[in-house]
Amino acid sequence: MTSPHSSAPHPFGLHRSLEPPGVLPQIARRLDATPRALANEIAVSVRALSIDSASFRQLREAETATGESVRDQIARIVRERGKMQNPVTGSGGMLLGEVAQVGPEHPAAGGLKPGTPIATLVSLTLTPLRLDAIGAVHAATERVEATGTAILFARTLFARLPDDLPEDVALAAFDVAGAPAAVLRDAKPGDTVLIIGTGKAGLLCLAAARERVGELGRVLAVEPGAAAAERASRLGLADAIFTLDARDPVAMLDAIEAATNGRLADLVVNVANASGTESASVLCARDDGAVLFFGMATSFSAAALGAEGLAKPTRLAIGNGFVPGHDRTALDLLRRHAPVARAFAELSGRAGG
Amino acid sequence: MTSPHSSAPHPFGLHRSLEPPGVLPQIARRLDATPRALANEIAVSVRALSIDSASFRQLREAETATGESVRDQIARIVRERGKMQNPVTGSGGMLLGEVAQVGPEHPAAGGLKPGTPIATLVSLTLTPLRLDAIGAVHAATERVEATGTAILFARTLFARLPDDLPEDVALAAFDVAGAPAAVLRDAKPGDTVLIIGTGKAGLLCLAAARERVGELGRVLAVEPGAAAAERASRLGLADAIFTLDARDPVAMLDAIEAATNGRLADLVVNVANASGTESASVLCARDDGAVLFFGMATSFSAAALGAEGLAKPTRLAIGNGFVPGHDRTALDLLRRHAPVARAFAELSGRAGG
Repeated sequence: MTSPHSSAPHPFGLHRSLEPPGVLPQIARRLDATPRALANEIAVSVRALSIDSASFRQLREAETATGESVRDQIARIVRERGKMQNPVTGSGGMLLGEVAQVGPEHPAAGGLKPGTPIATLVSLTLTPLRLDAIGAVHAATERVEATGTAILFARTLFARLPDDLPEDVALAAFDVAGAPAAVLRDAKPGDTVLIIGTGKAGLLCLAAARERVGELGRVLAVEPGAAAAERASRLGLADAIFTLDARDPVAMLDAIEAATNGRLADLVVNVANASGTESASVLCARDDGAVLFFGMATSFSAAALGAEGLAKPTRLAIGNGFVPGHDRTALDLLRRHAPVARAFAELSGRAGG
Repeated sequence: MTSPHSSAPHPFGLHRSLEPPGVLPQIARRLDATPRALANEIAVSVRALSIDSASFRQLREAETATGESVRDQIARIVRERGKMQNPVTGSGGMLLGEVAQVGPEHPAAGGLKPGTPIATLVSLTLTPLRLDAIGAVHAATERVEATGTAILFARTLFARLPDDLPEDVALAAFDVAGAPAAVLRDAKPGDTVLIIGTGKAGLLCLAAARERVGELGRVLAVEPGAAAAERASRLGLADAIFTLDARDPVAMLDAIEAATNGRLADLVVNVANASGTESASVLCARDDGAVLFFGMATSFSAAALGAEGLAKPTRLAIGNGFVPGHDRTALDLLRRHAPVARAFAELSGRAGG
């Protein structure tokens, strides 16, 4: 169990967990980062790390406090832990690189060639990593140039980087790809879909909703910032975009009731960054509708107890960041909706963490 | 908007919010508790309050610290706020009483007679309340005898108290009624259903799952306590009950893989009290299955990011405490499964908060 060279490496990478042995790699204090792919693994030649925002901020603070540079801290953490998991924040980031070696039993064997540029779609906190050298540290983008080898398990999500879209745009699309894929899966022709928040995830959801509900359906959005609402409005995808704060459930209900003649929304997609938007999300959905919560600020209990307190039997879903094919789905939406891709490029000077 | 006597009282009770006016009653600092039912309201003659555990504990601590009795504190809070919402914990509880007056436009008008004994199914934090007198305070059950009048809005959930089941059993069943109702709604004949946790909610879910999946389906459960697992096992509803801690995802996956020949569960119902059970819940569900999270200790981000990290496209649902008819559904399950009702009575010396 403790050596990657024992038989039957586990699809979730349990065989790489050294301390404690056999746990999920995200939980392990230390991973075996031996830089060779086992039968169901992929080895990746690392080109850069995109460090999670919370982690990067902590590393810079520690640099000021202790004098140990961000570069040296990263080198030390990866050497000690076999992965880039900030021991203070617990967070990681993702990496960019090229496929070096594909194990014969990996699900992508046969279709994935060495040299293919990829990005990981899961956290560095569960990715075995050995670094040979660390280059430039770009504070503005929280990007760190580095060479080394990372290991992907059979179930580790990754995406091929496209050659027709800027890298930052592709990475930003991957970062929020679960939400539009869920909209394409769950919205139906003729539905009224309400998108709460028009950041990057919201813009892709607008495009997905417009495609799915068709001309008989309605796409509504709310956004507290006037400039962001105006930018979303110019895309021409929504029937109406309201400059409203979703933390005000009564104002939200008034607006959406008026816009739908009291029918409310069949599907509410919450991609807001703010907390406290659960009640409004529930109130604006039909009793027989659904709310998809994708905002990481969502409170489980506020959503559950809010719906109960309002006697709303509406289905409430925890947005799952993984929908099969979501990476290509997100890129394809950008390709089909050039104005969205342009808005995305404006918003994606920095890659998501 | 600030007077309950203005026209068109709101189904969510916004017209009763005085400070600030027009907000959701749960958020308001003070409600208008005028003890007469408006057109779409019900007035209830209060018999007892069941105070939320966190609130009751705080009231007793304050009694020790300040000398103001629990009774006097409750009287003061209700007088000041027009509702029993503990200003420190923010929590409430529920109430028992009899229907006094049904407004002609309330959805239950016609079918609900004055004198019917009921319990509210939503929090006291959103229920206008005026108390005339407070009687005995029962610390063991966190029950307070009281007379007065409460107001239910058109959308305030309540349940009729049955005359064939003990009151404490009925209240405990109402408290967890959402979970078994969701199992009856979502499980299908032939499914494998895994219940995580065999407290009161878990026992009702076992009965619901057994009824729904039939003889071709399988009902599995996990429970960390040996005594609780043994009690659940004696009910004869599950095909297998494992004494396992759901905070150990690897042990859970091993057990459920072995029990299902690797197929995993179509539906996982998490009714565990402990936090840290999200990964195991996701791991034990099929990729095309679903997880229903009903445990209030569930972390939204742990569930969402856990599923993404494991590349599991499994649907994740926030258990909604309200499914239409869930109160009768829960009582009917107890009536059809006498051993469950007996186990419930043992566990229900105290009503849920």
